Amino acid sequence: MSVLDGLTCPLPLEDYPRVLPAHGGGGTLMHRLIRDLFAAVFGEGLQDRTDAALLAVTGDRVAFTTDSFVVTPLEFPGGDIGSLAVHGTVNDLAMAGARPIALSAGFIIEEGLEMERLWRLTVSMKRAADEVGVNIVTGDTKVVERGKGDGLYINTAGVGVFDHDPIPGPSAIEPGDRILLSGDVGRHGTAVLAVRDGINVAGDIESDSAPLVAPVRSLLEAGVELHALRDLTRGGLASALYELARDSGHGMLLNEEAVPVSDPVAGFAEILGFDPIHIANEGRFIAVLPERDAEKALTVLKTHPVSEKATLAGEVLAGEAGRVLLRNPYGTTRILTLPSGEQLMRIC
Amino acid sequence: MSVLDGLTCPLPLEDYPRVLPAHGGGGTLMHRLIRDLFAAVFGEGLQDRTDAALLAVTGDRVAFTTDSFVVTPLEFPGGDIGSLAVHGTVNDLAMAGARPIALSAGFIIEEGLEMERLWRLTVSMKRAADEVGVNIVTGDTKVVERGKGDGLYINTAGVGVFDHDPIPGPSAIEPGDRILLSGDVGRHGTAVLAVRDGINVAGDIESDSAPLVAPVRSLLEAGVELHALRDLTRGGLASALYELARDSGHGMLLNEEAVPVSDPVAGFAEILGFDPIHIANEGRFIAVLPERDAEKALTVLKTHPVSEKATLAGEVLAGEAGRVLLRNPYGTTRILTLPSGEQLMRIC
Repeated sequence: MSVLDGLTCPLPLEDYPRVLPAHGGGGTLMHRLIRDLFAAVFGEGLQDRTDAALLAVTGDRVAFTTDSFVVTPLEFPGGDIGSLAVHGTVNDLAMAGARPIALSAGFIIEEGLEMERLWRLTVSMKRAADEVGVNIVTGDTKVVERGKGDGLYINTAGVGVFDHDPIPGPSAIEPGDRILLSGDVGRHGTAVLAVRDGINVAGDIESDSAPLVAPVRSLLEAGVELHALRDLTRGGLASALYELARDSGHGMLLNEEAVPVSDPVAGFAEILGFDPIHIANEGRFIAVLPERDAEKALTVLKTHPVSEKATLAGEVLAGEAGRVLLRNPYGTTRILTLPSGEQLMRIC
Repeated sequence: MSVLDGLTCPLPLEDYPRVLPAHGGGGTLMHRLIRDLFAAVFGEGLQDRTDAALLAVTGDRVAFTTDSFVVTPLEFPGGDIGSLAVHGTVNDLAMAGARPIALSAGFIIEEGLEMERLWRLTVSMKRAADEVGVNIVTGDTKVVERGKGDGLYINTAGVGVFDHDPIPGPSAIEPGDRILLSGDVGRHGTAVLAVRDGINVAGDIESDSAPLVAPVRSLLEAGVELHALRDLTRGGLASALYELARDSGHGMLLNEEAVPVSDPVAGFAEILGFDPIHIANEGRFIAVLPERDAEKALTVLKTHPVSEKATLAGEVLAGEAGRVLLRNPYGTTRILTLPSGEQLMRIC
C-alpha cells in the first residue's frame, strides 16, 4: 500500500501537532520531518543525497525554470498550494516545449502550521507530480517564526529535456500566424478571490489548475509547427498577449467573442469590475502557429479534457508592432492596456 | 560601465522607494521591476524567456539542487542574503562533484522592503554568481503583505554538469578513509547571532560565506579520489559527520584538536553554551578520501585562500557503524549526540 492511499500522516501527530522552529534547525527534529513526512510522501523519486540530485538527460540542452507560490488560502476550490506548485512549474517547462523530468521543492513553513495540513499539501504535490510522471527529486525545509510567513510558501524549480525541434519562442512568431486559446479563462483567480473574501458566487467556480504537458506533447507529436506557447497565469490572457507582442515585435489581434468565459466567472468578474482576460489561470495557454496548422492543432487540443474547449481566438498582425488589439463582437477594435497590477494579490 | 560599478539603482526610487503589492501583481509595475532591477543587474545571463531558460549541457547527467534562504538580518558581517543564496546553492553542486552552470532566483518580498535595499542585495547576488562564473538565468517575483514575510526570502535552485567520474557519495566511503576539514568552523552562525542579538563579541566575527567550487575542482583536477564531500551548513560539522556516518553505515572519528576555531568564535560559543562543531558554516566542507591521497589533497586545499587552513581532522572507522566519535586532546573518546535543533533559527 502506498502511503498516499491511507491518507494518514506517518509522523506522530500527538507529539508534534504543529510545526515548531526546531523542525527547521538542522537537528534531529528536522531529520525526522524530512524522513517521516517529505521522504515518505515523495517516495523513491526523492533522492537521499543531501547535496544535489542526479538527473539523466538526453540531448545537449535542458530547460530550467522556477516559481514561488504564496497563494492564500492554502486550499481553494479546485486545488491547493501543493498541486498549484507542481502545475505552475511543469506548465512553464511545457510552454518551453520541454518534457519535465524533475522538480525541486523548497518549503518555507510558518511556525504553528498544522502538521496534518503540511502532510495533506505534500500528498497533493506528489499526486500532481505523479499525474505528469515527474519526480520531486530534491528539496529544502525552512521554518520561520509566527508572523513572518503565512502558513506555507513553496518554491518549485523544474528541469526538462527537449524531444522536439525547433524550440518554440516569440522570435518565431510571424504575421498571419493564428492564436489558439486552450479553454475558458478567469477561473483560477476568481475561485481564489471568492473563497478568500467569502463572496457568494452564483454557481460554483473551481480553479482550472491543471497540467498542460499532455496537450503540448500531442501538438508536438502531431508535427504541428509551434511558433510560441504561453500559459495564462498572473495577468491572464491579456498579459500573455502583451508579452508575446512585446517580445515578437508584432501586433496581436484577439477576437473577444472567441474567448470562452463561464457564466459564474463572467458574473463575478462584472461585479468586481474586472475583465476576465486579466484574471489568472493555472491550466490555460495560447499557442501561436502557422495558419496551415491551425485546424489540425485545434483537433488535437480537443482530444484532451484540459483543452477540449479550445478556440481559434486571434491572429498575428503585420502592423501594430508590439500592440494587442481587442475586437469586440460588433467588429470594433481597441488597444489593450495593462493594469498596474495591484488588484489580484497572492493568487499564485 | 556595468550597472554594478555605479551602485545606483536604475529604478526611479523617488516614485517607488518601497516595494508595493502591485510589484508582484503581473501588471506593468511588475514588468518594470523585472526589467529595470532584476534584468538590469543579472544582465545578459538572465534569459528573457518568461517560461523556462535553455541550458547547454555536456554529458548525460546533470546535478540539480535547491535551497531557500530566510536569514535574519538580511545583511550581516561577511555577507548578506543575496551572496548567501548563491554560495549555498553553488556549494551544494560542488559537493556533488558538479560544476555549476546556472542558477534560478525566486524572490518572496514583503511589502514595504526598501527598493534600494532590494537593489543592493540583487547586486550582491550577481557579484557572488560572477565570482564562480555562473549565470542567474531565470527567476520569479512574489510580493506578500506586511506581516506575512520578513523583508525578503530568496530561493535559489542550481543546475550543474559533471566533468569528472566517479561522482562522490557516501556509499563510496570505506573504513580507513581520511577526513579533511577545509578550515575553521563556527563563523557564519556566530556572526549572524551576534549581530542579530546585538551581542558584543571580543574580536570581530565575520561569516565564512564563500564559494567552494574552486577547491573542489582543484581536487578533482589533481586526480584525488574523492569518496564524499559535504558542506558544513545547518547543524555544522557535527551534523555533516552524522549524516555521512548514517548514509555510509560506517563510523566517523573526529579529532577535536584538529578542528580550527578562532578565538572570538570559541569565546562567543562558550558564553552561549554551544560547541562550535554544531554551528553553521557557509564556506567550509569536509572531504572523505583514501589515506594514500590525503597528503596531496591537503596540499591542494592549502593553495586556495578559502581552504588554506585545511586539516586532517579524522578518519573512517571499521566498527561503530553509523556513529560519530569525538576524541579530545587527552585521547578520550565520546559519542556525538545531535541537538534537536531549535537554538539556531534562521541563520541561513
